[in-house]
Amino acid sequence: MSDRMSYRDAGVDLDAAERAKDGLKDLVASTRDRFTLSELGAFGGLYQVPDDLKGPVLVSSADGVGTKLKLGFASNRHDTVGQCLVNHCVNDILVQGARPLFFLDYLATGEMDEAVVNDVVRGVAIACRENSCALLGGETAQMPEFYAADEYDLAGFIVGAVERDAIIDGSQIRAGQTLVGIESSGMHTNGYTLARKIVFDRMGLGVEDEYPGTGHSVGEEMLAIHRSYAPLFLPLLADGVSIRGLAHVTGGGIPGNLPRVLPEGLGARVDRSSWEVPATFQTLQDGGNVTRDEMDRVFNMGIGMIAVVDEDGADAIRGAADTAGLASYVIGQIEDGEGVSYS
Amino acid sequence: MSDRMSYRDAGVDLDAAERAKDGLKDLVASTRDRFTLSELGAFGGLYQVPDDLKGPVLVSSADGVGTKLKLGFASNRHDTVGQCLVNHCVNDILVQGARPLFFLDYLATGEMDEAVVNDVVRGVAIACRENSCALLGGETAQMPEFYAADEYDLAGFIVGAVERDAIIDGSQIRAGQTLVGIESSGMHTNGYTLARKIVFDRMGLGVEDEYPGTGHSVGEEMLAIHRSYAPLFLPLLADGVSIRGLAHVTGGGIPGNLPRVLPEGLGARVDRSSWEVPATFQTLQDGGNVTRDEMDRVFNMGIGMIAVVDEDGADAIRGAADTAGLASYVIGQIEDGEGVSYS
Repeated sequence: MSDRMSYRDAGVDLDAAERAKDGLKDLVASTRDRFTLSELGAFGGLYQVPDDLKGPVLVSSADGVGTKLKLGFASNRHDTVGQCLVNHCVNDILVQGARPLFFLDYLATGEMDEAVVNDVVRGVAIACRENSCALLGGETAQMPEFYAADEYDLAGFIVGAVERDAIIDGSQIRAGQTLVGIESSGMHTNGYTLARKIVFDRMGLGVEDEYPGTGHSVGEEMLAIHRSYAPLFLPLLADGVSIRGLAHVTGGGIPGNLPRVLPEGLGARVDRSSWEVPATFQTLQDGGNVTRDEMDRVFNMGIGMIAVVDEDGADAIRGAADTAGLASYVIGQIEDGEGVSYS
Repeated sequence: MSDRMSYRDAGVDLDAAERAKDGLKDLVASTRDRFTLSELGAFGGLYQVPDDLKGPVLVSSADGVGTKLKLGFASNRHDTVGQCLVNHCVNDILVQGARPLFFLDYLATGEMDEAVVNDVVRGVAIACRENSCALLGGETAQMPEFYAADEYDLAGFIVGAVERDAIIDGSQIRAGQTLVGIESSGMHTNGYTLARKIVFDRMGLGVEDEYPGTGHSVGEEMLAIHRSYAPLFLPLLADGVSIRGLAHVTGGGIPGNLPRVLPEGLGARVDRSSWEVPATFQTLQDGGNVTRDEMDRVFNMGIGMIAVVDEDGADAIRGAADTAGLASYVIGQIEDGEGVSYS
């Protein structure tokens, strides 16, 4: 009968959803470790609490990719945003000293385009593997009336673990300690709503045009993968390097994030001249005629992770960063007060 | 200067985002338990692995609310969808025998309407408290170009725990065992894309109109809170009632979910006459002229959770359901074969 209604008529194709899931199994399987007890398709993912931990504390965080996704849509490039998401989440629990255990993603689409779903989840799986993190599960939702046919939203959720007595909680931060900044890999996943307005609307550039001062296209530069700082810092923490605080420079920039890890009564002095702001950000500042204060509040300005350390800790971190090919800078110090002051 | 650009001009209001977060602190604090080590605002939420577990396995799941959200938008009712989300996630890990530990939400909005954000998160917090689950963190993302000003998407991630030797994995399911179905509380969170097309487009109803056969308005009936089955089943599991399998009837209905917990070589025979399909679903079937097979594949049809048990287990569950005021039914049995056959 012609007036008979079905789920497919209503825009949801369960068979396609199942097919997409089947295509993901190998990707997900590649992230399994000895603590992963479940296969994809179970209601819940199973992960044994690692038996090498004596007093394990779970550290968990949720995040999204934000409007950086629009760059992926415009460039028809879908395999990097998942890496940004995982690395962002890994960094968010790293700052408390945790190593990643497992990750789950939430992917909501207008239409279930299998190739796109596979690209997105491939990116998630690649970064999970790089961070020794099991991709334990996820949800792929078809919501035709929420998202344009070729658009999607992507969120993620990470669980890590740290020994209770190794949690980095900022309680050992003291005035006079040093701030070591590690270079970011571009804009990471913050400030894209403003950056896109400047680059596309104000400057009139397209994704194929050169992003001024970088030698990359706009699409390449603005899709640069958010760096994970776990490969740099987890070995240092395991080696007992005394890291008193770690701040991941995300939305809110340095002034929005560094104070989150400082104890009451302590602030930070940051010397803006201690590192060179990359062309990525200078272009935005100039192109949008944005104040430096506003830039600092929205973007990472070239510093993706900040460690609070004693002097010997600074040497250890900078040495390891050198070895990893990462630029590092002494960007300031802890002082009495509150918040971030610039000099 | 008039051409100076800022994040607020670009549609993102960091101050509003911070205010919204401040308003949430009390709600979140009300879900804390003795294992919750962090306050809201930390990069990652901290949760100690409960020390009453000898061989803890973490069970995790991610989910969204799907297009049920549209009912909330149409009814301007935002405090129930969070409860649906949490309860859905709780049920998804319950089927493996896990009790909830903690939950994180991802809320992506077009505009940061503080009242709406607070309503949504209040719902999440209420259900977390009801399920003895800490609301450990979450992300509230402003994505003005992804979502209409008064719309949002909501996803959640749960972590629970189960003793390794108490995982319900279906390995003890045998032919002849009994299927006990527990009543659902309406459509739960599945099938809304089809249901909305039938109710609004085909039947021409509005959210204030009566949903035929229910005595409720369309808005009330279709926003009915997804039931959590943890208060019924966790005490039974703690008491040692032998539950061989549990299936949460979500997208895909009984034929899509029950086989997920059955071992190779076993199927289920379900007697459609063993329970009365609620008016909620009969109205959809009639209004959309949907086949019964399609209804079974999309909706829970009145059965929200199915337990696979021996005869004495069936008595224990049905007794506890009676006490809890929940209707329960022997809806069929396990038999050799595969998938679900109806009689």
